[in-house]
Amino acid sequence: MSSQRMQLVIASNNTGKLREFADLLSPLGIQPVAQKDLGVTEADEPAVTFVENAILKARHACVMTGLPALADDSGLAVDALGGQPGVRSARFAGESASDADNVRALLDALAGVPEGERRAQYHCVLVYLAHAKDPTPLICHGRWEGEILTEPRGEGGFGYDPVFEVTETGCTAAELSRTEKGRISHRGRALRSLMDQLALITPAR
Amino acid sequence: MSSQRMQLVIASNNTGKLREFADLLSPLGIQPVAQKDLGVTEADEPAVTFVENAILKARHACVMTGLPALADDSGLAVDALGGQPGVRSARFAGESASDADNVRALLDALAGVPEGERRAQYHCVLVYLAHAKDPTPLICHGRWEGEILTEPRGEGGFGYDPVFEVTETGCTAAELSRTEKGRISHRGRALRSLMDQLALITPAR
Repeated sequence: MSSQRMQLVIASNNTGKLREFADLLSPLGIQPVAQKDLGVTEADEPAVTFVENAILKARHACVMTGLPALADDSGLAVDALGGQPGVRSARFAGESASDADNVRALLDALAGVPEGERRAQYHCVLVYLAHAKDPTPLICHGRWEGEILTEPRGEGGFGYDPVFEVTETGCTAAELSRTEKGRISHRGRALRSLMDQLALITPAR
Repeated sequence: MSSQRMQLVIASNNTGKLREFADLLSPLGIQPVAQKDLGVTEADEPAVTFVENAILKARHACVMTGLPALADDSGLAVDALGGQPGVRSARFAGESASDADNVRALLDALAGVPEGERRAQYHCVLVYLAHAKDPTPLICHGRWEGEILTEPRGEGGFGYDPVFEVTETGCTAAELSRTEKGRISHRGRALRSLMDQLALITPAR
């Protein structure tokens, strides 16, 4: 089996994520294929938890292609908001909200909440399904601890990065280089953990 | 907060599991309450994955009680059967099948599959939900590696234990003492991992 490359559908249409997955999966003997190259439409994200959304996306891609699939779902959970915006992170200010709209909605929702009570976590949940009826998906959950500032700082990143002050570094996620962010972020952690687990079950081992 | 005990619903009606959870949760300042003592009926288990079933059960208990909830879903996945019986482990031979019926159905399904190709894993997925809309449940997944024998051996345990030869020990799960099984089994591992994570977020820390 060691000379055979395993095909894996990536249940995402985000080109940045696709490139990141390709870089990491290739050395494991895995050939990632973007779902849109196989004619797979985007699945809904109707669930309350990141992990259920990621499973739904991966299963949809498995069903449509007959291949193993990898999906992620990610977002921000703010303690003072009971875990919101959570799975609605990308649409907190409405269905086609911009990053700036969402950041504004978050700052408004936290108006009057003092420093020290603005703890938040970025979450990234990655799910690997071997096939559509796989009862035991690999699930990797990366967390990134921080605090929501009262105004944006920094030009990099996306989403809530300019108001997310990273506990570990004291700067915002938008002030980190892409490399540094990848090294310590929720997505970087989840990806490395997934790669460790995939390495145990793929042909290249 | 440290003198206040946190109430937690256990979304299970299995008295053995309830006792085991109570023993482990009490030192963490958590007071477990059986869901039936709060009038919660058993949730369905309609999903394809253990983790989705456990989330559904925990969420049902949260919704009915307004308390945090803990649920588990567990079973056997056989490589040669593509992960089956999986979430249908308790009803592999039919809705009200006995353990003996299920073991017989499994041995029949594996008839002719030679030694070395009968690898299987017991899985236990534990889910802790802080509230019904918690986007990031704690998920702990314990695995236990083994091989399915061609005939039963040992008198202890339950389910598929008599035909599950534990890779680590060479004896079947039904030949282990309860203490030894708890120390190395899928459920024991998932429970210890969950306790480590709960200890970080509960009042007793």
